[in-house]
Amino acid sequence: MKILTSDAAEMLQSADDILILTHQSPDGDTLGSGFAICRALRRLGKRAQVVCSDQIPHKYAYLWEGLDSQQFTPKFILAVDVADPKLLGNKLSVYADKVDLCIDHHGSNTQYAKHLLLEECAATCEMIYGVIGAMGVELDRAMAEDLYTGISTDTGCFRYSNTTVRTHLIAAKLLGLGIDAYAINRAMFEIKSPSFFALRKLALDSMETYFDGHCALIYITYQNMQSTSAQQEDLDGLTAIPRQMEGVDIGVILKEKEPGAWKISVRTGEPYNASALCSKLGGGGHARAAGCALTGTAQQVRDQMLPVLAEALGVSL
Amino acid sequence: MKILTSDAAEMLQSADDILILTHQSPDGDTLGSGFAICRALRRLGKRAQVVCSDQIPHKYAYLWEGLDSQQFTPKFILAVDVADPKLLGNKLSVYADKVDLCIDHHGSNTQYAKHLLLEECAATCEMIYGVIGAMGVELDRAMAEDLYTGISTDTGCFRYSNTTVRTHLIAAKLLGLGIDAYAINRAMFEIKSPSFFALRKLALDSMETYFDGHCALIYITYQNMQSTSAQQEDLDGLTAIPRQMEGVDIGVILKEKEPGAWKISVRTGEPYNASALCSKLGGGGHARAAGCALTGTAQQVRDQMLPVLAEALGVSL
Repeated sequence: MKILTSDAAEMLQSADDILILTHQSPDGDTLGSGFAICRALRRLGKRAQVVCSDQIPHKYAYLWEGLDSQQFTPKFILAVDVADPKLLGNKLSVYADKVDLCIDHHGSNTQYAKHLLLEECAATCEMIYGVIGAMGVELDRAMAEDLYTGISTDTGCFRYSNTTVRTHLIAAKLLGLGIDAYAINRAMFEIKSPSFFALRKLALDSMETYFDGHCALIYITYQNMQSTSAQQEDLDGLTAIPRQMEGVDIGVILKEKEPGAWKISVRTGEPYNASALCSKLGGGGHARAAGCALTGTAQQVRDQMLPVLAEALGVSL
Repeated sequence: MKILTSDAAEMLQSADDILILTHQSPDGDTLGSGFAICRALRRLGKRAQVVCSDQIPHKYAYLWEGLDSQQFTPKFILAVDVADPKLLGNKLSVYADKVDLCIDHHGSNTQYAKHLLLEECAATCEMIYGVIGAMGVELDRAMAEDLYTGISTDTGCFRYSNTTVRTHLIAAKLLGLGIDAYAINRAMFEIKSPSFFALRKLALDSMETYFDGHCALIYITYQNMQSTSAQQEDLDGLTAIPRQMEGVDIGVILKEKEPGAWKISVRTGEPYNASALCSKLGGGGHARAAGCALTGTAQQVRDQMLPVLAEALGVSL
């Protein structure tokens, strides 16, 4: 059942021993939401604990600074930024049909929770900001850091088109609490592992342009991932690279997940339709971002892509 | 003479035939400021024209969309975001001692203008926002795009520590006017030339780490600049790269301006003092960002740097 911010606040005010579920492969928004609401609930004298199926990357450690671990039998289950119970991951799957309240900003939310607070805004942290206010809890600096983290990471630091007037108004409030936004943004966006740099170098080396520079491809091979010891997070931002090249209308990233098995990501500028393009290769997605799966060597995969790319651009191969 | 926002607004309201000077090597803030105030002055029925000593890069073309060129003998000279008359460049140097009003956010402003409106805020565009309001001109979407551009570029898209509560509040107002902030940020931060990518690849290839990974160096040789046909703007962001590597406390960028003549940029994290370090090599700067000039081959320059870096880190060479 869909509810309002004030309902969610009342529900949490009446609850106790609250277990807060975040999604697997946790990001700044699910964690920032979880720890901010946890701090607010504890401020009201309640027991509350954030949990995640996956280990939380070290760079997020400041989000729970000063929050000790609490053990209790949960009486109320809250999920934050979790669009689908599948995203709870293995360890938390036991709670899939037991979620009392879900607070989420994904339009794709499967409405699995007993109560759902849903707004299609930039970040769940924007909604948590509202819920904390509606619970009558005054924001402190630690909560503000948590919320800023979610908002900044989910908007690419206010860069993506999901950034709204409200996003900036909330950011202004959070900065007013004296948070070190620069340090947060540096930790979230700038610090990279040696593997990241090694992989980026290989990706740039692999870049090929076609059709008079209107199309660029980069390859991340299985061997590249092995040789650089790259983790999932080291792929950050690679998808954007081809389209950053001046004049490129269609950017393609070919990532070899297992030897010979490729995941293709396509990014397009107007008027080129990425989804239509990928559907010709058995995939799909959105107008500007889509994908498909292909098999073979790098050259074989490229040779499958090129005719479809030429057709999309309306040029001959 | 230093004046207030309301004084500056009154002065501009009484003026006509206003020539608006921007600084050489123009950036988003000087151009955004210039074209926004130009639009506002024209709205008041005045003649106004933005000028720059250098050619304005094509990516900024949207800033003056719809503004035709006006020819007139200037009766009032306004400089925006110009801290020092030297920065007017050759073509505009004739106006160096004729500036009636300067609106600028640089603490280093040399107070060369007859009247100076100075606030040490994130961007001159923040101040222009205030001046336009004080002139009683209602912001339109085109002005908002100009102002947003200056604010976003001078704050690294709200990432740098100069971003304040007011910065976000103004951004909220500008977004409220329906601007396409995503398109602006993409044009300002994402689109790069083939030379940029080629140069970045060479820079990453050149990266060396020392002292257990606490220090990283990258080299941009004269030859690199020639072979990639790189322009000044293709160096964007290179200075940040060494310090983005996890664990690096001191990042050094060695750029060979002319064969054998190097400009060294040093970036440090706390507690390492970049200025103290560079002063040992005849340079100087700020605590976190400083520089110096050295001569020799890449190896000779590195050999001059390493003992100073070791000393700064308190380790042996």
